[in-house]
Order: sequence, then structure tokens, then C-alpha cells
Amino acid sequence: MKCKVCKGPALIDVRRHNANFCSDHFIRYCREQVSKTLKEFDMAEPGDRLLVAVSGGKDSFAVWDILESLGFDTNGLYVGLGIGEYSDTSGQYVRDFATGRNLPLTEIDLRSTYDYDVPTASAVTRRVPCSACGLSKRHVFDKECRKGNFDAIVTGHNLDDEAAVLYGNVLRWQTDYLGRQRPMLPALNGFPKKIKPLVRLSERETAAYCVLRGIDYLVEECPMAAGNKHLSYKAALNLIEEESPGSKQAFYFGFLRDAVDRFDLTTSDPNQDRSDVATEDSPILSPCIECGSPTNVETCSFCRLLRRASGAKPVPVELIRKKY
Amino acid sequence: MKCKVCKGPALIDVRRHNANFCSDHFIRYCREQVSKTLKEFDMAEPGDRLLVAVSGGKDSFAVWDILESLGFDTNGLYVGLGIGEYSDTSGQYVRDFATGRNLPLTEIDLRSTYDYDVPTASAVTRRVPCSACGLSKRHVFDKECRKGNFDAIVTGHNLDDEAAVLYGNVLRWQTDYLGRQRPMLPALNGFPKKIKPLVRLSERETAAYCVLRGIDYLVEECPMAAGNKHLSYKAALNLIEEESPGSKQAFYFGFLRDAVDRFDLTTSDPNQDRSDVATEDSPILSPCIECGSPTNVETCSFCRLLRRASGAKPVPVELIRKKY
Repeated sequence: MKCKVCKGPALIDVRRHNANFCSDHFIRYCREQVSKTLKEFDMAEPGDRLLVAVSGGKDSFAVWDILESLGFDTNGLYVGLGIGEYSDTSGQYVRDFATGRNLPLTEIDLRSTYDYDVPTASAVTRRVPCSACGLSKRHVFDKECRKGNFDAIVTGHNLDDEAAVLYGNVLRWQTDYLGRQRPMLPALNGFPKKIKPLVRLSERETAAYCVLRGIDYLVEECPMAAGNKHLSYKAALNLIEEESPGSKQAFYFGFLRDAVDRFDLTTSDPNQDRSDVATEDSPILSPCIECGSPTNVETCSFCRLLRRASGAKPVPVELIRKKY
Repeated sequence: MKCKVCKGPALIDVRRHNANFCSDHFIRYCREQVSKTLKEFDMAEPGDRLLVAVSGGKDSFAVWDILESLGFDTNGLYVGLGIGEYSDTSGQYVRDFATGRNLPLTEIDLRSTYDYDVPTASAVTRRVPCSACGLSKRHVFDKECRKGNFDAIVTGHNLDDEAAVLYGNVLRWQTDYLGRQRPMLPALNGFPKKIKPLVRLSERETAAYCVLRGIDYLVEECPMAAGNKHLSYKAALNLIEEESPGSKQAFYFGFLRDAVDRFDLTTSDPNQDRSDVATEDSPILSPCIECGSPTNVETCSFCRLLRRASGAKPVPVELIRKKY
């Protein structure tokens, strides 16, 4: 197995591109894929200040490292979700990464800032944990992005993530979600720009990138995500990918090229609170009466979550895990 | 396990409907599902004369039997594809079924009528066998339907078939195929009406229906279909269905409800020959100069297949099987 670029011994194969790489050229390949993605979807331009949401996992570290190597002005953002030991460990990984590279890091802990955590929010609002978690993170990301006047929020979603989400949305034909499943959402109606620069890299590649770059990341998955349907969507897509390498990329990029524009928000329920997302088709938004975030109802969904979860008796992780 | 209807001992469970049935009520359930489908998609009305394409497998026998039981005037159509022993056996099953029930059957043998068979057509035109087979069958179906002045051509595609085809079309976002993936295509531009009354029944249900009705069908799959991607699409969908019964039905019927109208033929290549399908967006068609079938080119794709395959030295099944 020889490196496609230098013909030296290769360390990793990328089957869907029918290519093998040595360590140095694999790292270069990953950076080039991100660079291409940034341009292709108007994600960022040289000089942009980017707020990188980091979890302690391979993807967020990989995207942060790559954006740094490409010369962007980056700032990490870590949200302490209060998911027991998992959150304690992930926070430590993030701090070690930022400190070791002398990169600026903002930390927001849900418990100390808002007096709740994800397991408790899940219990009191009867939302599945991933839903309570997503709502909380989106709110904090948006707020910190506005506060720091960053050009965009960066998340580490990779090709496998996006293909699995797309698969789930297609299986149920959730036309409103389909319409906004884009790797770049422009700043709109008070919401910051959101970008996913890793959509051309698979999770196997972001893991290999971290290993080859000597990045120490948290391998463990979030304990609340066990049973999450995305895991079975990934398995189903992997079946196809195994037989026809490139299927996953064709599925996701084919969607962006030929299908996403056919879906929009016009069919979605106008009474549903879409305060945590924005598209051109959104109804006119006004500031939430409690936090000032743009929303199409009086009180945004985050503040409604807060009303019920903040100050509630903490619920231990184990109790929620048993439930879902 | 008790029958949902009569509370007697149940023989079969239908997980996606959370229902169990005894033999009699399962047969009634299958007929009701077909009856509902016929109305829902304007497929057929009492008194319609239907040409049922039969292969010798469970699905085509089930649909023929059900349409008979619902009082339609049916006529079977069997196309001899020349796929070695498989075709010999399937033809015998079809003849036995029709004779045993005293139902009219039309037989068209590709070799004796057109001097070619599917393996040979596949070899000389370098089409995959399923493509050469599909093109041949569509031509014969259309021709016999026009000739006999039937109201529609019936095929036995079940829910699993349609969901797998949809899955394949979505994985590659084949927007033109998506636009015409409907269980009923109206008569248009000289093409007969085409209906798929089994789309509310899974393949496990059509098999059980045949067993309970004492219908002897060919279990063996077509030997040319081995390696066909639909088999892996079915496996991937079954993974999801196993975890969440009803996913497959939600996927297919959600598509028909919320998505199919978003796709059309306007994006398809206008130079591509669409002579074997028709939709409202098709370009204006004129008769094929050789066979008179509607086509958007001078010679329809069937006649072009014929030019190359008819009279060519027969290619044995085994040779094609090795190739694909």
C-alpha cells in the first residue's frame, strides 16, 4: 500500500476516493478537504473569527486543529452539560487541548450558569436527553457567538453524522428539517452563521487525523445517546457503504446538489416554535421577552425549558439512562 | 397470541400494525388492504378488466388471487424470459395456477416471439440483466395491454419492493425516477395505466397469504438477480424495521404524501430515451418507426435492443451470472 502522493509507505486507505496516504499526506488531505468545503459553501474567508464548539471528542478537536492550521482566528467554546462523569472527563480533555496549544477557550457550565443540567432538563420537561441537550447547546452557542461578535459558529459534524441525520429525515420525510439540512446556514434574523467544515471527512478519517496529529481525545460516546436512533441509521448506511464505497458521500452531496432546494419551511406547522433555527422562510421573529433571543413566540423554547428545569431537584444520569 | 378480529388463536402477527390474525381474518386483512389501495390511488373500479403480469412468485399470484376474489375481470400475462431452468420452472407454476383456477392466461415467450432471451440481450447490449429484462417486460406488458384493450396492467410489487426501490433512488437522489415512483401511473401518451395494488402488504404477508390460500409458488429468486443492489437495500431497511416496526411503511407512504410531488422530470436529460415510461412532463411522443410504440426518439429502446439481440448467438445463463 503506497501513498497516492509521495509513493512512500501508506498508513491509511480512503476507499471512497480509492486512495492511500502516508501520515503527512493524509493530514494534508484532511486540511485540503476542509479548505475546499469552506470555499464551496461560503463558510469562511481568511481573517474570519470562528467560535468552535468543542466536546472533547475527535471531531471537534480535528476541526479546531485544522482551522488553526489554515490560519483562522479561532476560539473554543465548551458547554458543561452536567452528564455525570462523562462531562467531567470531557471538560478535562478540552482544557488540556486548549492549554497545550495556548488556544483561547470559553467555558459555560449549565449548572453554574443556569442552575440545571441535561439529565434534569430531560426529566422535568420529558424531552429525550438529546433534545434537551441540543436545545441548550444551540442557545449557548448563539449567545456566545453574538456576545463575542464572531463570524460563525463551527461544529464538528462529519460526513457520517450528516448522512445519518439525512437518512433519518428522509425515512420520515421531515420536509422542514430536510429544507434546512445544509452545511452552512447564513446569519439571519439575529441568528449567527453556522458552519460544518468536516462534511467531506468520515468519522474514521477524523479519528485517524487526531491519532496522527497526537491529539488525545475522549473516545467514549455520551452515555445519554445509547439507543439513539442515529446509531442504527449509521449502521444501515454502513451496510451500503461497505458494498459500494462512496455511497454515503453520494447520498449527502447528491442531496445538497439535487434535492435540498426542493424542500422548505412552507409546509411546517406555523404554530410550532422555531426559535432555535432560522431560514429565509421563517416567520418574522421578535426578541424573546426573557432572554432577547430571536423567536416567533413570546418566550423562546430555551427560556421555557429554563422555567421548568432551573432550580429543579437534580436528577442523576443513571435514572435517565434507564428510561430511554 | 389471539386474532385481533375474532379472538381465536392467531397464526400470524403484523408487527407494524400491532395486530395478530387467524387464517381467515388474515386473508380478509390482505384483501382489505388491497381494496383500500385500489380506491386510495384511483387504481381500478368495479368492472375494470385487468391484465395481471405473473412471474410464478408469491406476489404476482397473491395479487391475481386477491383481484379475482374482489370480483375483477382478470387475465394473466406471463413473459418467458429464457433464463434457463428458472424460466422453465416458473412458467410451469404459472400454467398450473391458471389451469387450476380456470383463469385466462396469455403467454409471450421472448425466444419464440422475438428470437432472443434475457441472458443474450444482456450480453450483446452490455446492459445488466435486470435492465434488459425490465425493458423487455415493459414492452410486452404495454403491447398486450393495448392489444387486449385492458384498463390497466397490474404488477405484484409489494411494500418491501417499493421501499427498496425508493431507498435506492434516494441514496443517489435520482430525481427523475423519484418523480414517477407512484403506485399508479395513469394512461398517458399511448402508454397504458400501471398499478401496484400490493404496496400496503409486506413480502412476508404476501408469502403468508399464498401459504394460507394453498397457492403453490416458486420460492427461488431469479438467478440473474444475485448481487442486485435491491437485496442490500432491503437488508438495510430491514435493520431499521426490526428496531422500529412501521418504519418502512412510513418511509414509502410519507414519500407519497409529502415528497413525490416535489420531484419531476424537468431535470432529467432530454436526450435520454424515455420511451418506456411516461409522465405528464414527458416530451411529446410519436410512434416508434419500427413497432409503433410511443417514444421520444425515432426507434424506441426496445426495438434498438431487438436490433442487436434478435437472432444473436444465444448466451447461456451461467456466463452472465459469472459476470455480475
